Amino acid sequence: MRPAPRTGATLRATTSRAGDGERLARLALGRLGEPGDPRLASLVAELGAQRVHRHLAEERDLGGVLTDVAARLAALDPARDLERAERLGIRFLVPGDAEWPTGLDDLDHCGHVQDRGGSPLGLWVRGPLRLHELASPVAVVGSRSATTYGAEVAGEIGAHLADAGATVVSGAAFGIDQAAHRGALAGRGPTVAVLACGVDRAYPVAHKPLLDHLAQHGAVVSELAPGCSPTRLRFLTRNRLIAGLSLGTVIVEAAVRSGALNTAHWTERLSRPLMGVPGPVTSAQSQGVHQLLRTGASLVTRGAEVAELVGVAGEHLVTEERGAVRVRDALRPREAQVLDAVPVHQSAGADSIARTAGIGLVEVQRLLVRLHERGLVDRVGSGWCLSDAAR
Amino acid sequence: MRPAPRTGATLRATTSRAGDGERLARLALGRLGEPGDPRLASLVAELGAQRVHRHLAEERDLGGVLTDVAARLAALDPARDLERAERLGIRFLVPGDAEWPTGLDDLDHCGHVQDRGGSPLGLWVRGPLRLHELASPVAVVGSRSATTYGAEVAGEIGAHLADAGATVVSGAAFGIDQAAHRGALAGRGPTVAVLACGVDRAYPVAHKPLLDHLAQHGAVVSELAPGCSPTRLRFLTRNRLIAGLSLGTVIVEAAVRSGALNTAHWTERLSRPLMGVPGPVTSAQSQGVHQLLRTGASLVTRGAEVAELVGVAGEHLVTEERGAVRVRDALRPREAQVLDAVPVHQSAGADSIARTAGIGLVEVQRLLVRLHERGLVDRVGSGWCLSDAAR
Repeated sequence: MRPAPRTGATLRATTSRAGDGERLARLALGRLGEPGDPRLASLVAELGAQRVHRHLAEERDLGGVLTDVAARLAALDPARDLERAERLGIRFLVPGDAEWPTGLDDLDHCGHVQDRGGSPLGLWVRGPLRLHELASPVAVVGSRSATTYGAEVAGEIGAHLADAGATVVSGAAFGIDQAAHRGALAGRGPTVAVLACGVDRAYPVAHKPLLDHLAQHGAVVSELAPGCSPTRLRFLTRNRLIAGLSLGTVIVEAAVRSGALNTAHWTERLSRPLMGVPGPVTSAQSQGVHQLLRTGASLVTRGAEVAELVGVAGEHLVTEERGAVRVRDALRPREAQVLDAVPVHQSAGADSIARTAGIGLVEVQRLLVRLHERGLVDRVGSGWCLSDAAR
Repeated sequence: MRPAPRTGATLRATTSRAGDGERLARLALGRLGEPGDPRLASLVAELGAQRVHRHLAEERDLGGVLTDVAARLAALDPARDLERAERLGIRFLVPGDAEWPTGLDDLDHCGHVQDRGGSPLGLWVRGPLRLHELASPVAVVGSRSATTYGAEVAGEIGAHLADAGATVVSGAAFGIDQAAHRGALAGRGPTVAVLACGVDRAYPVAHKPLLDHLAQHGAVVSELAPGCSPTRLRFLTRNRLIAGLSLGTVIVEAAVRSGALNTAHWTERLSRPLMGVPGPVTSAQSQGVHQLLRTGASLVTRGAEVAELVGVAGEHLVTEERGAVRVRDALRPREAQVLDAVPVHQSAGADSIARTAGIGLVEVQRLLVRLHERGLVDRVGSGWCLSDAAR
């Protein structure tokens, strides 16, 4: 038997879709409550979205999960929502779609943070990047009120990841998020913004051009329906998606109360690599990162180290910076000992060098000849001095 | 039977001394070769200093350890050296003396670094501090060419350790060494400088006042006899003493080729806590430290964390910086959800808040009342707005 041709299989896979009933039910349920409600997520996982929808529409008691629900469900028109989103170039993905990013499914098995959790009911997406095809996605996040230092490092990491063929995943906030996207764009790499509001909205407003650019060349993603506004809570629940979409997370700067630490906790929950960029211990914006580094996160100082830790395909093992190799480094200890005993600013006789070195005269004379052969000492009359190369 | 009174025992212990023959033999052998020669150290450990001295004086073959030795030994007068040192207020300690710091003995069992190692044959000491009584000695070392940032942090760590009753151990170089001593002195704590030259010499010359001050109030230590000058190699062998005298080592700043990394390696060899202070990844002076932190050293950001890691007596567990606690933090998720839905700049009706929050009207009304009781929202006509406390 011949195996099915791979191209055909891939084609079938990428065009496979979840059923419309499931999609509409998930859309409606998503509009009903806040994202990341773990009770709703587990009900949907257990009963399926359509059954949960039906139960709620018939006002059956589901353990007090939601109140006033039937009336609110009746007021929704998910089919029209879908149609309207499509006209705006926005698609709504649900599990079972070929484009569904499977990395998110781990969110169903990693518990809750601050009573939020679970995989999203669906994802609204704007932009050409296909979420199931993201190459080595890496979350690069951090403080909104980043320092210029933090922004510089986030930009370098974003650019290196792009260069290495990896995908940057971040929010759309000022500071580190912005710098990471800019770095990735400078490296002509794919980049994904995950929002705490509808993908048709720009928050902060000043980032509308950035978000429009990502919608043209990358992807803008949210579990909130178009039109929804961002809230504090939505930023926190959004963070689990940034962690869940990525192979690992780098925190570039974070104060002790930064929301980026929440993304860090999700990454730890997901047992994926958590990395932190150190900074001055005197900088409040590095304090939160240092706490993570003290409790098990990996210290990274540049993009290459990030790429290595998440295993970006084709990325070679990082070579440590070693500084210039000097001729001195090749000397044996006793040769170095004699060389050290040759005065820097004048010449000296072998006997004086032998006393300084604490080595016998015979051996010192032999070693001086060897150092002379290596070009490290020069003869001056009956004495020796350091050569220019050895200074 | 009554146990011997502890005071008497302590008194006997502190006045116990190694024999004079042993002391003179170690002094002479120390003058003969370079410190940290592992072959000489192991011969002395095996045969005793007096026997090794006798063998060498009789020019017996000891495996080519030293050449021209007999003549050089004959030219030495260790008894006169000792007498002259005593007149300068310098004492020479050897194993067996009550003041011998036992932490150094581990150096005999932790291998070599760059062909140097072993415990010292003896220690020349200047200053009132007794080396066997050092309270919680901690090495604080780093780059000579420290940044102002590094010097500031080293000073804080030195001062905190002094405050906590610990002893700072360092070299006498510019930069981190100096800053650590200054911090300890500012905290009125004991501090020890370990030199790569004789304890009667000041290197760098600019640190003569500092070293004289330490000789008055702390201790200046070297395994090199008075009069000896510093060499590159002697700095490296000196580093093992800094590590060996201390319960643990903090590297504050170090470039990738810094000598401080050598002290770090000795600390690792001794299986004692190795700590590093992070800095900007863009600073060459932090690069070496970051490499240590990536390969297992513990990240520390302040003196209290250092004291905790080496177990300074009486030091409490460090509490993490958490930032100010805010009223919001005490809210349940659904209360926070409603609070987030109350607009910042205007008031809104409960129905509009319910829509934004994605929670039913009945529940929202109940939660708004609760938030009102907590002083987080105010009634404005028929609507609600954020209180000043919640903004």
